[in-house]
Amino acid sequence: MKVLIVFAHPERHSLNGALLDTAVKHFEDKGDEVKVSDLYAMNWKSELSREDFPQYPKDKKLNLMAAGAEAFYSETITSDVIAEQEKMKWADLVVLQFPMWWFSMPAIMKGWVDRVFAFGFGFGLGEYNDKHFGDRYGEGIMEGKKAMLMVTTGGWESHYSNRGINGTMDEILHHIQHGILFYVGFDILPPFVLYGTMSLKEGKELDATAKRLCDQLDNVQSVKPINYRKQNFGDYDIPSLVLKEGREQPGETGFQMHINKDNEETSL
Amino acid sequence: MKVLIVFAHPERHSLNGALLDTAVKHFEDKGDEVKVSDLYAMNWKSELSREDFPQYPKDKKLNLMAAGAEAFYSETITSDVIAEQEKMKWADLVVLQFPMWWFSMPAIMKGWVDRVFAFGFGFGLGEYNDKHFGDRYGEGIMEGKKAMLMVTTGGWESHYSNRGINGTMDEILHHIQHGILFYVGFDILPPFVLYGTMSLKEGKELDATAKRLCDQLDNVQSVKPINYRKQNFGDYDIPSLVLKEGREQPGETGFQMHINKDNEETSL
Repeated sequence: MKVLIVFAHPERHSLNGALLDTAVKHFEDKGDEVKVSDLYAMNWKSELSREDFPQYPKDKKLNLMAAGAEAFYSETITSDVIAEQEKMKWADLVVLQFPMWWFSMPAIMKGWVDRVFAFGFGFGLGEYNDKHFGDRYGEGIMEGKKAMLMVTTGGWESHYSNRGINGTMDEILHHIQHGILFYVGFDILPPFVLYGTMSLKEGKELDATAKRLCDQLDNVQSVKPINYRKQNFGDYDIPSLVLKEGREQPGETGFQMHINKDNEETSL
Repeated sequence: MKVLIVFAHPERHSLNGALLDTAVKHFEDKGDEVKVSDLYAMNWKSELSREDFPQYPKDKKLNLMAAGAEAFYSETITSDVIAEQEKMKWADLVVLQFPMWWFSMPAIMKGWVDRVFAFGFGFGLGEYNDKHFGDRYGEGIMEGKKAMLMVTTGGWESHYSNRGINGTMDEILHHIQHGILFYVGFDILPPFVLYGTMSLKEGKELDATAKRLCDQLDNVQSVKPINYRKQNFGDYDIPSLVLKEGREQPGETGFQMHINKDNEETSL
């Protein structure tokens, strides 16, 4: 298996850095190939800007959609973006690893998404007709590949529980797992989440955490992806993209409706 | 009224730029004072990094919490961050204006949050005891001030409807409105949202949009904020921060539980 880990922490010798080491070693020990994009070490440019479109006329009003399409068709996308796109095409599994800051990814990783998931790669793909609204949400260049988040947070697990003040981790990560990764076609594996990082002690506690991570990584080939509903396969009206009546479980609302639980075994 | 608008678009002469002009003019015509933080024009540094803690020993492992606390107590926070914090303290209303990219803010604005909402300003405030878990979620330095989002998206309104594939705009913006802005104490006004930007025509359509924005801005003093539940006022167990049983509306789940609808008049 080929694994790309995108890592966004300003300190390589941090808890996140230790978990990265654990993951890399774990994959390599099994014979997997691993590449790491360490965004801070790479001095990644976070801001999608005019500089992303070097061929775009300097005096012309910057229309991002037009500039992105021109860069794609003229093959003038910048080399740093191309390099990341190539790593993603190479990988079977893409892991985004980050400390959760303000209930989302650090800016540098958001900037990796904003710039790498460009026109012709992350969006603007496929046909638009009365049965198909582009290759997105389950289709796209990343189709057949897996993606997974590795997230740490200082908050406590109870704060993210069903009735916790932060909302559940599933809800919080939805804009990333569904809105970014499933959108470009990945199958989304359940995330690795570490709560309460500020009270985590080195030694036994960190070892147990590393073990839990390894156990989860052992199962990436067999674990079921989150069963998000694909856009173009009958669940949604096109082009309104409204979920057809009766598809969801009784009483289900919100983000949950977009996960198909029809064939799920109840654990009760 | 004093208004700060934080603006994140790489092209000042864009639709977002036109809406910014509309908002600034509208406020100034009423006698309000307006400041704009145009993040791209300011060349805002997006990445929270070691450079944010100039006094922190160069050879010491960067612990963000420790470094942030040290910078706060030693008053060595960088001048660009201090300037933004001062603007926020000055303002009665803070507007974050951005095009929605990948279901969140552009990286440059996330970086504004990551860096400006620092220890001693955005978090790490107030007492932690058995009745009070810090000044957060409804308390904090921004208490008594209002915040509002101005968001544009290429997606269609139906895609963001109750059953739309993107999820509702309320859910998508929750991590910003609740997780960032309410967390630091703001009252959150309903957002201004513009859908379908790619088909919006200049002339009549843009004029109607500008009018809708002005109408909404006319009401910022009177409109009810989103009634998020404050953390330390009895709705949540402390320190688990779990919502007490029976507080929510029957059948309510997810993010919605954290909005108190007890005194809401039904519109049916």
